[in-house]
Amino acid sequence: MPPSERLRDHVGQGATTVAAHRTRRRLRADRARQLADLLRRQLLTDAFPDGALPHEDALAAEYDATRNTVRQALDLLRAEGLVTRQPGVGTVLATRKYPHGLDRLMGLAETLHEHGRVTNEVRATVPVPAPAPVAERLRVPPGADVLYIERLRRLNGVPLSLDHTYLPLDTGTALLGADLENNDVFHLLESVTGTPLGHAEINLEAVSADAHSAAVLETPRGAAVLMLERLTHLADGRPVDLEFIRFRGDRIAMSGLLHRSA
Amino acid sequence: MPPSERLRDHVGQGATTVAAHRTRRRLRADRARQLADLLRRQLLTDAFPDGALPHEDALAAEYDATRNTVRQALDLLRAEGLVTRQPGVGTVLATRKYPHGLDRLMGLAETLHEHGRVTNEVRATVPVPAPAPVAERLRVPPGADVLYIERLRRLNGVPLSLDHTYLPLDTGTALLGADLENNDVFHLLESVTGTPLGHAEINLEAVSADAHSAAVLETPRGAAVLMLERLTHLADGRPVDLEFIRFRGDRIAMSGLLHRSA
Repeated sequence: MPPSERLRDHVGQGATTVAAHRTRRRLRADRARQLADLLRRQLLTDAFPDGALPHEDALAAEYDATRNTVRQALDLLRAEGLVTRQPGVGTVLATRKYPHGLDRLMGLAETLHEHGRVTNEVRATVPVPAPAPVAERLRVPPGADVLYIERLRRLNGVPLSLDHTYLPLDTGTALLGADLENNDVFHLLESVTGTPLGHAEINLEAVSADAHSAAVLETPRGAAVLMLERLTHLADGRPVDLEFIRFRGDRIAMSGLLHRSA
Repeated sequence: MPPSERLRDHVGQGATTVAAHRTRRRLRADRARQLADLLRRQLLTDAFPDGALPHEDALAAEYDATRNTVRQALDLLRAEGLVTRQPGVGTVLATRKYPHGLDRLMGLAETLHEHGRVTNEVRATVPVPAPAPVAERLRVPPGADVLYIERLRRLNGVPLSLDHTYLPLDTGTALLGADLENNDVFHLLESVTGTPLGHAEINLEAVSADAHSAAVLETPRGAAVLMLERLTHLADGRPVDLEFIRFRGDRIAMSGLLHRSA
């Protein structure tokens, strides 16, 4: 008996006809989501090296699922923008998702170096008076100028993230003449200060892309965005870099290792 | 000169009229997003303890922005479901966002204990034949039964996450009689095995809620979801718990500390 049937039996016992119908529909949706989650994982770990997923029948057999469930699961992945379905070809990878390390404080070019070349389109570099929450975190007087940098970051030409960066003016000014198009700010900060970075407080959220971010990132309006807020300190404790980074949800995943003991 | 003007001057120099117009529109959108990011941070850190944001004029003055920019920023936060705007009252917090620790391996009830009570609606507990990617990660023979658990998790009655969990049957069976409604699986696993958890491989992604997950989580279809895949091992190295967790993007943020040196 396939697991969908077993699950149905298990949950549906004693249910009325209408309730049983609802339960079946729910379980089909659950099964599709379960399968989509397993396939998402396979896609992320390059389990389909030529980018083509097995045929629906093969997936149905492998995952002990109905063809309907397989189709629903593939529809979910398509809605996420991960795969496209081509007539006569089948289901193929639409976009690769790259793993951004969560275990160590790293810049984008650094964490993705084995996947290709990161380039940055610098959309703005301009001193602005620090708004109170920026001033407080960068430990500068409120209203004092900080350097604001806005970059669209690409991997091998493909948009990955839109970054808003605030730097205190003392270190920031030294970055004005630097090659921001081809370097991580982390790398430049360590170069100009002669001090290694120490730690960063990070905050990760899932948000929907507003119309404007979506246009810049070349993704549909409302698409899921992985939003990283990060306050980075030099090894001597000085806060030097406050960033608000919008990663395209279909192109970046964060991966790391957590330990139980503190 | 307000920073929006300065930014405009900086970028707009030498632009044609049409290009200048486009640039101005772009910069207004950029400014709104910048402000929304700062306010999102304030919301997350409870900077408005009574849940009411300052009046638009006050925000405009504080952030040196136009009222138009303030309105656009508030619209972005409203689109995310973080605030609502009430006539005569102003902008108020719609939902609290809770920080889930990223520094230590913790269950939901554990990480949120100071914010209230986590309860779990157990939607399914059923043995299923392990699909290949599950079998491989849990180190059981492909097709061997594993325990599948599906839970809707709430904090103080409010839906936070939809969790799919796969457990090897040896430890899983011991959980069948346990109080899954009021306990983290982590806590139960440590109890029944008598072994502390060791580490977990995690993967974090932003995805859009499919229709069915959205309905279960009581959030709009397509809403941003923070998706956590987590394979947890006992301290002796045995993998014991593979989870696919969908957190509502408007209710959970992940926060932690990263270090530069490995």
